[in-house]
Amino acid sequence: MGQKVGRQSFRFNKPPVIAAAANIVGPMEGEGPLAAQFDWIMDDPLFGEPTWERAESKMLRESAKLALRKINWQPREIDFFLAGDLLNQIISANFAARGLDVPFLGLFGACSTFAEALMLGGMVIDGGFAARVLVASGSHHNTAERQFRFPIEQGVQRLPYAQWTVTGAGALALADQGGGPVITEGTAGKVVDLGISDVNNMGAAMAPAAADTLISHFQDLGRSPAEYDLILTGDLGTVGSAALKDLMKMQGYLLEGNYCDCGMLIYDLARQDVHAGGSGCGCSSVVFTGSIWKQLNEGRYRKVLLAATGALMSSTSSQQGETIPGIAHAVVVESPNLA
Amino acid sequence: MGQKVGRQSFRFNKPPVIAAAANIVGPMEGEGPLAAQFDWIMDDPLFGEPTWERAESKMLRESAKLALRKINWQPREIDFFLAGDLLNQIISANFAARGLDVPFLGLFGACSTFAEALMLGGMVIDGGFAARVLVASGSHHNTAERQFRFPIEQGVQRLPYAQWTVTGAGALALADQGGGPVITEGTAGKVVDLGISDVNNMGAAMAPAAADTLISHFQDLGRSPAEYDLILTGDLGTVGSAALKDLMKMQGYLLEGNYCDCGMLIYDLARQDVHAGGSGCGCSSVVFTGSIWKQLNEGRYRKVLLAATGALMSSTSSQQGETIPGIAHAVVVESPNLA
Repeated sequence: MGQKVGRQSFRFNKPPVIAAAANIVGPMEGEGPLAAQFDWIMDDPLFGEPTWERAESKMLRESAKLALRKINWQPREIDFFLAGDLLNQIISANFAARGLDVPFLGLFGACSTFAEALMLGGMVIDGGFAARVLVASGSHHNTAERQFRFPIEQGVQRLPYAQWTVTGAGALALADQGGGPVITEGTAGKVVDLGISDVNNMGAAMAPAAADTLISHFQDLGRSPAEYDLILTGDLGTVGSAALKDLMKMQGYLLEGNYCDCGMLIYDLARQDVHAGGSGCGCSSVVFTGSIWKQLNEGRYRKVLLAATGALMSSTSSQQGETIPGIAHAVVVESPNLA
Repeated sequence: MGQKVGRQSFRFNKPPVIAAAANIVGPMEGEGPLAAQFDWIMDDPLFGEPTWERAESKMLRESAKLALRKINWQPREIDFFLAGDLLNQIISANFAARGLDVPFLGLFGACSTFAEALMLGGMVIDGGFAARVLVASGSHHNTAERQFRFPIEQGVQRLPYAQWTVTGAGALALADQGGGPVITEGTAGKVVDLGISDVNNMGAAMAPAAADTLISHFQDLGRSPAEYDLILTGDLGTVGSAALKDLMKMQGYLLEGNYCDCGMLIYDLARQDVHAGGSGCGCSSVVFTGSIWKQLNEGRYRKVLLAATGALMSSTSSQQGETIPGIAHAVVVESPNLA
């Protein structure tokens, strides 16, 4: 049974447990600074499939199966699978669910989907509707480029403030009991649009939504940024992260040494040619499942605030002159030692 | 606090109330047999906007606002807005949420989205995370045609078993207390794919998922079809409904006089040139909010099972030779007289 706190936040009375985490990433992510944290690094972005779209769906399905395998859960023991991705009609998640034979709830929150799934997954458990839930999200650089921008074969020059869609998928197995980090609180985001219309500058479009959700979180729960070991945004990249820090500072909240962005952790920005950093539904999901979950589980982090951010436009809305609305959902995950 | 029942079903311990219902439909839906049940019939499918996409989003936003207005709720009193639509990256719902200033959770279940939203909306209320929730889904014939099939200006001949995407949006206001029909139980669907690949035959692609969810529902809850005043599928149309009846009969379940499909109720199939009937995220949402909610509220129906159905493909997946997976989510709504 949960409890609402303030305008946008809530608290779990019996915090759901994150029993297992798994991920699969592409070759480039496997050459980045988090390489040692990933379960499975693909040699080839096609992953043995005839198309990148099928490869993306397979990553999502296999990461979900891998999370189950780590704790010896069977698909038939899972009450709900909550997942989403960036592709039109979230085909990666739909086709991944087809192979799992588990009740499925499709979500779309663009790159905020991982936090949305974690939040809703926790709610159905603490609400009494499920004992075991699987959540996942993923993205693929090559499918996202051809859907939102240009086919990669075209070799279009990328802008310096553009981000690089992560090829990867991450999954978490949630339970109503057992060992593992716990989800204690969350803040659901509003759609925020300050009028950015440059589809190459997702960081700037999402930063106002991240600031809105983080400030709501601190206000609703009467908390300061310093109370977290880590505040982690999903995929703002260098441009969006700098904008977020400025926006927060204007409201009296300092994001200093305990703040980072998944899009800046996943690649070596000096060496890998990804411009402003990583993005995509897979960015926060592979960084959280690969690195953060482990550090929480081992007690190296005690309390982490994950605020995944999404840009809610489509090619059609941009072509029709619309600006880019953003959203951010935040969840608090705590070390099992504190629970 | 909820309770899981069997493999896929659940029960609300304190059933959430559907306090208000509202909808907006297009001119053609306003000439159909349910015309008198709709709140707002648009004269023009552009709804005063420069594009059909903007009109679709406006329908969704205005139907949500209308549901609030009927019971004098303010947007700032709403804990969550759960919505989705058929467009790429669910831009209709995203842009509708931008105008509402309410915490937003985007969903994608194709034409099953309305039942998915009702199910999850009920869960967050009964789970203690919200007191008031708004759910909505919608679709627009002209945006769906150009996204999934052919631009309507092209005048392509439609196949006799094709369905007609409904132009319309429906919204429900859910609460933890008060008067109105109540949501008592539900069954979450699995993704089912029997290999249909004809994108003009959505009914056939979705019927196996509808059968799977209905049979799970009856088995989980130990119930027979005769216990409902009405069993209503979302948008199977004439072809899919006939297939569903056959599939159910093979498993020993007879869908007789108490069975109907929203896609067959919304148009006059003999007079309006819609071939196999209506479809789209707006189909079940406007039929339920327009006709069914009222009849439940007035006690003319006591117990209704709404099973909204979705076809989970995209243009890309079909062009890449994939078959069409389907899904169906079911919710039980009971008259306030029984609650």
